Amino acid sequence: MMGKRIYLAGPEVFLSSAREIGARKRAICEQHGLIGVFPADEEAAGDPALSRPDQGLAISCAMERVMRTCDAMIVNLTPFRGPSADVGSAYEMGFMRALGRRVFAYSNDDRPFLDRVAAFSGGALRVRPTGEYEDPDGMAVEAFALHDNLMLAGGVIGSGGCLFAAAAPHAERFTSLVAFERCVAQAASDLGRSSRS
Amino acid sequence: MMGKRIYLAGPEVFLSSAREIGARKRAICEQHGLIGVFPADEEAAGDPALSRPDQGLAISCAMERVMRTCDAMIVNLTPFRGPSADVGSAYEMGFMRALGRRVFAYSNDDRPFLDRVAAFSGGALRVRPTGEYEDPDGMAVEAFALHDNLMLAGGVIGSGGCLFAAAAPHAERFTSLVAFERCVAQAASDLGRSSRS
Repeated sequence: MMGKRIYLAGPEVFLSSAREIGARKRAICEQHGLIGVFPADEEAAGDPALSRPDQGLAISCAMERVMRTCDAMIVNLTPFRGPSADVGSAYEMGFMRALGRRVFAYSNDDRPFLDRVAAFSGGALRVRPTGEYEDPDGMAVEAFALHDNLMLAGGVIGSGGCLFAAAAPHAERFTSLVAFERCVAQAASDLGRSSRS
Repeated sequence: MMGKRIYLAGPEVFLSSAREIGARKRAICEQHGLIGVFPADEEAAGDPALSRPDQGLAISCAMERVMRTCDAMIVNLTPFRGPSADVGSAYEMGFMRALGRRVFAYSNDDRPFLDRVAAFSGGALRVRPTGEYEDPDGMAVEAFALHDNLMLAGGVIGSGGCLFAAAAPHAERFTSLVAFERCVAQAASDLGRSSRS
C-alpha cells in the first residue's frame, strides 16, 4: 500500500497559510501510509517572462500533469464563495473521475444543500407548481438529498469513494482537518484493500 | 464534419424553461452542422422505486455515459450562485478534458474575475503584503486575468478550445444565446478543420 499518491484538492490553496495547511495534510496522509500531493507545493516558481494569463495556464498544465501521477484524490467540498464547492476542485474531480481514479471527498459544512442555497438566497426560495424549490434567479434547487450538485456526488460514489461531512466552527471551516482525517483513514483502508485484492 | 456530437453543459438545466433552451441550443448547433446534446434531454424518467439520492446518482451515471459519446463540449460559464461557474459544469469540463475532448466555453458576463469577486464580496477586498487581493474570508483572488479559476481556463485552452464572454442584460444572463452562437460557429469551424486534416 505504501506509495499511493493522493491529490489533495480544495480551496485552502487560496489561504495565505496554504503551505502550512498543505504540510499538515501531508503529515496526516503519511500517518496513514499515503503520500499526499498538495497543489500549492507543485507550482513551480512562475516565469516572470510570461504574461499573467500564461502564468495561470502554466499552473493549470502542471496540475493536470500532477493529477495523472496520482492514484486517487481527496477533495475539500466545503462551500466556497457561494453554497457549492470551489469550481477548480470540481473541475479536478471530473478530471480524476474520467481517468478512473478513486475520488474521496469531505466538507466542513454538513448542512443539507437545500438549506445552504436557502441561506445564500436570504431564505427567498420559491416552490414551483411541480413542487420543486427554485432560487430567486428561477433556478431549481436539486432535491436529491445529496451534498452538492449531483455530478459531484456521482463522481465520488461512481468511483467507489465516499464523502464525509462534519460541521466545523465557522472561523475554522477552511482550516479544520477533522473531516479530512476521517477521509484519509477511509482512503487508506479502501486503497489498501484494493491493492491487496 | 456532420455528426460531431457536442455536449451542451451549463446551469440553464435548472431553469423551468430548460427544455425550450435546450431545443434552441440544438437548433443553433444544427444550423452549423453539429449535433447538440443537451443534458436535460438525456435524463430518463426517474424510477420512482429509487430513493432520492439514487435518482440523482442515476442522472449522474447517465450524463457521464453521454459525455463519453460526445466529441467536444460547449460549456456555459456564466456565474451561478456566486462569482464563478456552476460546479456541475466545471466537473463536466474536467471530465471531458481528461477524455481528451475539445472544450469550448462562453459566458454571458464579461466582467473581469476580480471585479466579480469584489462585487460578490460587497467591495470588501483586501490587499496582502504580497500585493495579492483577498476576499473577506482571507481567500486569494486569482490575478491571472483569466475568466474564472485557472483550472477552467486551462481546460479550455489546453484542449484547443476557446472562450467567448459577452455581457447580456441581467434578466437574460441565463437565457441569452448570443455568446453561445459565436462559440458554436467557432466549434464548427475548428472541428471541421481538424476532421479534414
